[in-house]
Amino acid sequence: MDGMLERLRRLPYEDIGFAELDHHRDLRRGFPEVILGEGKSEEQVVAIAERLAADSDRLLITRVDVETYGAVKERLPDVHYHADARAITLDRSGGPRWPGVVVLCAGTSDLPVAEEAAVTAELMGSQAERYYDVGIAGLHRLLDKLEAMQSARALVVVAGMEGALPSVVAGLVAAPVIAVPTSVGYGASFGGLAPLLSMLNSCAAGVGVVNIDNGFGAGYLAAVINRQSREGLRE
Amino acid sequence: MDGMLERLRRLPYEDIGFAELDHHRDLRRGFPEVILGEGKSEEQVVAIAERLAADSDRLLITRVDVETYGAVKERLPDVHYHADARAITLDRSGGPRWPGVVVLCAGTSDLPVAEEAAVTAELMGSQAERYYDVGIAGLHRLLDKLEAMQSARALVVVAGMEGALPSVVAGLVAAPVIAVPTSVGYGASFGGLAPLLSMLNSCAAGVGVVNIDNGFGAGYLAAVINRQSREGLRE
Amino acid sequence: MDGMLERLRRLPYEDIGFAELDHHRDLRRGFPEVILGEGKSEEQVVAIAERLAADSDRLLITRVDVETYGAVKERLPDVHYHADARAITLDRSGGPRWPGVVVLCAGTSDLPVAEEAAVTAELMGSQAERYYDVGIAGLHRLLDKLEAMQSARALVVVAGMEGALPSVVAGLVAAPVIAVPTSVGYGASFGGLAPLLSMLNSCAAGVGVVNIDNGFGAGYLAAVINRQSREGLRE
Amino acid sequence: MDGMLERLRRLPYEDIGFAELDHHRDLRRGFPEVILGEGKSEEQVVAIAERLAADSDRLLITRVDVETYGAVKERLPDVHYHADARAITLDRSGGPRWPGVVVLCAGTSDLPVAEEAAVTAELMGSQAERYYDVGIAGLHRLLDKLEAMQSARALVVVAGMEGALPSVVAGLVAAPVIAVPTSVGYGASFGGLAPLLSMLNSCAAGVGVVNIDNGFGAGYLAAVINRQSREGLRE
Amino acid sequence: MDGMLERLRRLPYEDIGFAELDHHRDLRRGFPEVILGEGKSEEQVVAIAERLAADSDRLLITRVDVETYGAVKERLPDVHYHADARAITLDRSGGPRWPGVVVLCAGTSDLPVAEEAAVTAELMGSQAERYYDVGIAGLHRLLDKLEAMQSARALVVVAGMEGALPSVVAGLVAAPVIAVPTSVGYGASFGGLAPLLSMLNSCAAGVGVVNIDNGFGAGYLAAVINRQSREGLRE
Amino acid sequence: MDGMLERLRRLPYEDIGFAELDHHRDLRRGFPEVILGEGKSEEQVVAIAERLAADSDRLLITRVDVETYGAVKERLPDVHYHADARAITLDRSGGPRWPGVVVLCAGTSDLPVAEEAAVTAELMGSQAERYYDVGIAGLHRLLDKLEAMQSARALVVVAGMEGALPSVVAGLVAAPVIAVPTSVGYGASFGGLAPLLSMLNSCAAGVGVVNIDNGFGAGYLAAVINRQSREGLRE
Amino acid sequence: MDGMLERLRRLPYEDIGFAELDHHRDLRRGFPEVILGEGKSEEQVVAIAERLAADSDRLLITRVDVETYGAVKERLPDVHYHADARAITLDRSGGPRWPGVVVLCAGTSDLPVAEEAAVTAELMGSQAERYYDVGIAGLHRLLDKLEAMQSARALVVVAGMEGALPSVVAGLVAAPVIAVPTSVGYGASFGGLAPLLSMLNSCAAGVGVVNIDNGFGAGYLAAVINRQSREGLRE
Amino acid sequence: MDGMLERLRRLPYEDIGFAELDHHRDLRRGFPEVILGEGKSEEQVVAIAERLAADSDRLLITRVDVETYGAVKERLPDVHYHADARAITLDRSGGPRWPGVVVLCAGTSDLPVAEEAAVTAELMGSQAERYYDVGIAGLHRLLDKLEAMQSARALVVVAGMEGALPSVVAGLVAAPVIAVPTSVGYGASFGGLAPLLSMLNSCAAGVGVVNIDNGFGAGYLAAVINRQSREGLRE
Repeated sequence: MDGMLERLRRLPYEDIGFAELDHHRDLRRGFPEVILGEGKSEEQVVAIAERLAADSDRLLITRVDVETYGAVKERLPDVHYHADARAITLDRSGGPRWPGVVVLCAGTSDLPVAEEAAVTAELMGSQAERYYDVGIAGLHRLLDKLEAMQSARALVVVAGMEGALPSVVAGLVAAPVIAVPTSVGYGASFGGLAPLLSMLNSCAAGVGVVNIDNGFGAGYLAAVINRQSREGLRE
Repeated sequence: MDGMLERLRRLPYEDIGFAELDHHRDLRRGFPEVILGEGKSEEQVVAIAERLAADSDRLLITRVDVETYGAVKERLPDVHYHADARAITLDRSGGPRWPGVVVLCAGTSDLPVAEEAAVTAELMGSQAERYYDVGIAGLHRLLDKLEAMQSARALVVVAGMEGALPSVVAGLVAAPVIAVPTSVGYGASFGGLAPLLSMLNSCAAGVGVVNIDNGFGAGYLAAVINRQSREGLRE
Repeated sequence: MDGMLERLRRLPYEDIGFAELDHHRDLRRGFPEVILGEGKSEEQVVAIAERLAADSDRLLITRVDVETYGAVKERLPDVHYHADARAITLDRSGGPRWPGVVVLCAGTSDLPVAEEAAVTAELMGSQAERYYDVGIAGLHRLLDKLEAMQSARALVVVAGMEGALPSVVAGLVAAPVIAVPTSVGYGASFGGLAPLLSMLNSCAAGVGVVNIDNGFGAGYLAAVINRQSREGLRE
Repeated sequence: MDGMLERLRRLPYEDIGFAELDHHRDLRRGFPEVILGEGKSEEQVVAIAERLAADSDRLLITRVDVETYGAVKERLPDVHYHADARAITLDRSGGPRWPGVVVLCAGTSDLPVAEEAAVTAELMGSQAERYYDVGIAGLHRLLDKLEAMQSARALVVVAGMEGALPSVVAGLVAAPVIAVPTSVGYGASFGGLAPLLSMLNSCAAGVGVVNIDNGFGAGYLAAVINRQSREGLRE
Repeated sequence: MDGMLERLRRLPYEDIGFAELDHHRDLRRGFPEVILGEGKSEEQVVAIAERLAADSDRLLITRVDVETYGAVKERLPDVHYHADARAITLDRSGGPRWPGVVVLCAGTSDLPVAEEAAVTAELMGSQAERYYDVGIAGLHRLLDKLEAMQSARALVVVAGMEGALPSVVAGLVAAPVIAVPTSVGYGASFGGLAPLLSMLNSCAAGVGVVNIDNGFGAGYLAAVINRQSREGLRE
Repeated sequence: MDGMLERLRRLPYEDIGFAELDHHRDLRRGFPEVILGEGKSEEQVVAIAERLAADSDRLLITRVDVETYGAVKERLPDVHYHADARAITLDRSGGPRWPGVVVLCAGTSDLPVAEEAAVTAELMGSQAERYYDVGIAGLHRLLDKLEAMQSARALVVVAGMEGALPSVVAGLVAAPVIAVPTSVGYGASFGGLAPLLSMLNSCAAGVGVVNIDNGFGAGYLAAVINRQSREGLRE
Repeated sequence: MDGMLERLRRLPYEDIGFAELDHHRDLRRGFPEVILGEGKSEEQVVAIAERLAADSDRLLITRVDVETYGAVKERLPDVHYHADARAITLDRSGGPRWPGVVVLCAGTSDLPVAEEAAVTAELMGSQAERYYDVGIAGLHRLLDKLEAMQSARALVVVAGMEGALPSVVAGLVAAPVIAVPTSVGYGASFGGLAPLLSMLNSCAAGVGVVNIDNGFGAGYLAAVINRQSREGLRE
Repeated sequence: MDGMLERLRRLPYEDIGFAELDHHRDLRRGFPEVILGEGKSEEQVVAIAERLAADSDRLLITRVDVETYGAVKERLPDVHYHADARAITLDRSGGPRWPGVVVLCAGTSDLPVAEEAAVTAELMGSQAERYYDVGIAGLHRLLDKLEAMQSARALVVVAGMEGALPSVVAGLVAAPVIAVPTSVGYGASFGGLAPLLSMLNSCAAGVGVVNIDNGFGAGYLAAVINRQSREGLRE
């Protein structure tokens, strides 16, 4: 245990007033700290982004609008904006991307969440194959992607409304399914509660669920699983 | 309006102390009053059954155990007990049964609710084709019943857990789907809340939902729809 | 099963980037794909509408404002806007409409949902008789429509607040009642939860419930039931 | 204010170890302290009953079984047991009972709660006219009691399931309606939540709601209202 | 029963397109139809108000802003606006007002709901004594009003947050307490759920609860109770 | 930070197969590990009790029945059983007990939870003054204890039903109030949700809330606060 | 009891129309009345502030924006605005501040609630040591503050999302932990319900919970506990 | 797509009356069908077990008591019973087990769920390292296992109460964390809702959540992830 605690103890972090930055997260968890843009001012996002980018070759900022992107770009000209995902990325790693992550979503309105997952997985070193609008009401559109689904090593399945898609998919594949409920819908959806409960009660084994609208969390988990199954765990 | 109110006013009913029996329901609604056994004593069930059977050639008692069945049978020897459905029926009508109702359920534990629906539909003059254990985790088992499903005029689809079966079925057929959530499941099923919300949020149109575990209600509604589409509405 | 799968497999659909259009839904389900306007941009609605209209003689777009209507009309001059229902329809089918659907609602504020149901049923080939503001607090207004209610083959009953109207109506008619809870109300309505639970627990049999504010779903289901009872199922 | 505080301060109560008895409640609120039997041991009920009966000519113990009744009767031979209501009463007041309270319930299984209300109102000096099993699914049974309902000065309306009865009744009468939801039902009743919400959202004015299954509270409130409207407030 | 049905049947109402007006409600329930302004357009409010005012000497419109008041005043110059209550009233009855209704509220922010109750009670012929900001955290402020509370024949008690005020008050008075939870508060108030549940579980008997923020319903109920206890029921 | 981590690292614990015992908790938190009896077998409780008693002069086992007490007593003859609290204690510390903790409860049925709090506080070195059955429906019983309440340094206030007692008490005292909701009640109490929400929304400052029925947690917190205010914090 | 009631009775308060001010709260509770700015007009806030400041040397107004601050400052030039906390304070007491309160929060977005707690504690005479952004996902950042945490006499721990920080902290310290859930988060946070439940179910003893986002309540409670443990209770 | 559909179509299954067995699930999903014992009769379990064992060299039956085990053992003498997990396994595969799965739980009462996960993972070919009773209230017990945790390729983390353990663990490791909430706890745990929400809102990325008490689902998912990362996906 000594070694571990010693390493824990020595982990440096930086206090920039309103946030303490964890520069060694990359070492410990295999990915640098991510900035959740929501609830932060443009100035805060820019400041944190600059500091993190000084120590890392990759950067992810989620839930930001295009104005904030402009402000970040002034300081970090090589960032990229993903309008559908509402995310900013910076990737100077130049590393290859392993195939293996498939992202599916049930309807057009689930697309932003699906894109957040895909962009996250890509930045973490995975290729993300996208199949959108393949809801269960038109089963043939889904079955048409069966081959792609069955060759994946991790699937992110995004759905609102009745949230049945992950269960249907999990019944057809052997790889882990990361289910993401969305708040898309109305009435008895209760802000995504309906698909959330649906996914937690999936009759098909092999499904792990993340928070409503949490595309980032799903993409992160899928990329970790895919990376492990390609290269083995980082020692 | 006069005629209607006159008819309403003249509807006779019988006060037997703890219940007022509605002998003209058959006339008004096309089916005699049903006895919900749950929460009634054996004596109460027997008394109500006897009175209703005096005026009607059909009788349905739901949610009763085999002991109550014994007590009813002493007074009404031609009743029948359906162990899976936990229902007592009596049918002296001798009428034919129209095909058109299909009852599907997702798992073995949903069977009692599915049987309650099937028995109800049968007593109301429909044939009920049953396909059980055709959950979405094994899509091929379900697709194998496609032809039967597509020839139905009303489908009762019973499911617990994630409750996705009615949505999948509704995407494949043109006839109305009556969805029945069940309280089967545990944890985040919350007593059937999960499949209930799932069914209400179905992405496929053509789905009407009834209360959790309400096999009777679903069978009743399916039989009404089937009867209408076969013989036209009773004038 | 082969034939079915073969047909499923061969169903064409069209990928227009942000949506995969299901042109054969009409064949499979008896009605073309419907566009839920909510959550789609004006451009997306126009693009999908144009493609669907190329292959179908009927079109329904729900939950759109009058601006989007203007944009659609530029491309499809024969569309019609239903302001109360907030829906766009296009109907080149020229077919007759069968009587049999009755739409009731409890209060003035439930009117938009009721109209969405009526417009949907009409586009699907049914006449929709409307009786609005017939809530149970003034029972005589409701009873005055008894004759019309009893001659229907499918009733859509829309109610917010305590949601009792479908139960009262179902006690008076033999035809199926499609109950639609609305989010109208305040406080312990909890966004329509109160009438939703009320309708699911209806003491009257013959009631199927759809999602809160889901006028489209109710109108669709009523039209399917009415069509079946008039012409028999489409083979 | 002095007088009031003086009176408050001087109110005697008696400490019997596990309970502090409020002998002056009768003076302050017009009715002696009531014993909720549920959750108390037989010994506790007997001890409290004896003490209260020493100072009051009326006594009410709710939610007790017949065994506890036996134990109480040994000490207080003039108590009476109401099996349906599961209540013990003692009334040595010999006072007249004013007509004016009507108790309605929707189904046979709501009867115990309705009886608790009726017994409570009677002990508090009101006559309680009972009309049971007059649910809204058979409106003619209810309308047949219209005259009695309209001559009441306070109505207790008990209902489980969809809980619509109080709304329907309140639309027909001018006197206050005390609505009591019951936990009777299953599935989406959620232990009485459905009728509770239904009653709180009643579209008819003049409805006050009490807790689920709280027959005592409803009977108490109805008796207070009736007494006031007959004799004027006790000064 | 004939007489009743005859009267029910003959009740006239007027269809003005988007609403059916119930001119005989006054006869049946002792008070004319009330207009809930929320969710109605200015035009609709004006049109309904004009029609109702033609047949009634009193009028109440709740939840309207001052602009709508201006529009109504153009047609009905003798209407009055109550800014705190956000209500419009018209009273040409000239009748006296009976004392007996007391309106209490726990905090300044509960004032609009309390005022809606008070204005309603006044229009229905009661005087409404108001005591605001007498929450339980400063018990002496409340106890100072004890005499007034104890001379009331109906008390409306409005509270948000923990909603304890009605229970405290009901322990001090003999007259009925109408409890109104408000949506004032934040966090675990959950839009008024906290005080609503609190009031339903009141340990003090004699409390009837209305919907969250339903000042109108509480004022109506209090006025009905007060009127009955003063003049006896209208035959 | 080194010292702290060093101390954390060196904390010994003992693995007894089904549990890892934390012998240094006393050092770190000022009180030894407590055994929650619920959900443990008699054998497990005895085994853990014996081990802990070997290293500590005080022991607390909560939620155990008298049978388990017998089994523990065989091994640890100086344990004591508190029947109302359903708790076993052992106290060989012989230390004095500081006055300052007052435990109040609203009704007789809240007594077990109140006793669990009192017994816990006592074992932790505080005297616990108890005032039970002082609910707000009889305010004079409560006000009679005002002097005792105002001399406390920590008050545990236990209440079910509407849960208003902690708010009323907190308005009268300066010391911290630990509020404990209980699951006592029925219907819309929803297992203690009603008093829980009520306490969290308290309009009086100075209230901290613990879990429903968590007498132990409340007694622990009160004793910690009292100890601090008497002796200062243990360095 | 006489003395107490006498004191209660004599407590003066001032009626300023829309609020009754409790000038003796300082005497009774050790802190003057606090103004919750939310839901009050600028004029109301200014008026109440002026009156309270006339009788007290300290003043706290929570949840106000900088415009209201400007208006208050015109009348009370020595007030101070805390932008992060959105609070106005005035402190003419000139008293010393005792160390002992530590305020921790899990993320940058919890900062406003944490600041409200810190500012409140300071105004009440405590020093407030702040450690922000020490969430459990980076345990080393938290453990680095162990020494400071262990020397506190009251800790306010603010967290949204999974709300685990108070449990982790309470396992490391002996002093009371005041846990504040925040509404920060999305999806299954349900407005702060997730961290609220998490904190109430804390496996570590010594945790008291306040309402979601209730920084004021937490700071108040922490200051009371700290003051008691430093100076003894005010007699 | 043809090949896929062809394979789907040809999947054989066996109808044994009350269940349709899916013999090819092994092929499709890499693991044979699992029998959920709960809600099935002893006879049903035995019958299904026999059939499945005829076609597969591994078998898992969850949530069964020791009596059912006896009955199964009569027919399948080489089955094994895991008392803590309440599971029956049969493993004739003789294959090696890969290290890589770590199962952690927070308290003794979470042990049955943790064991269900461990037994499932083992039967699926993984070694399962177990560390129980390492809750966050004693952080040093958890940190002592850091090395083992960091060498895992999939971690199952089981916790009831506040459910914080998965978040703490996920902050320390790079591999995926499967979080399992348990229904252990009381009061505001609401049957496991508290830890479920806590886990879904985890501030640490890399967490997938399964249903409350779903040890099987977690073990399955962990084994799939571990297998993939060891051998690559089965083609």
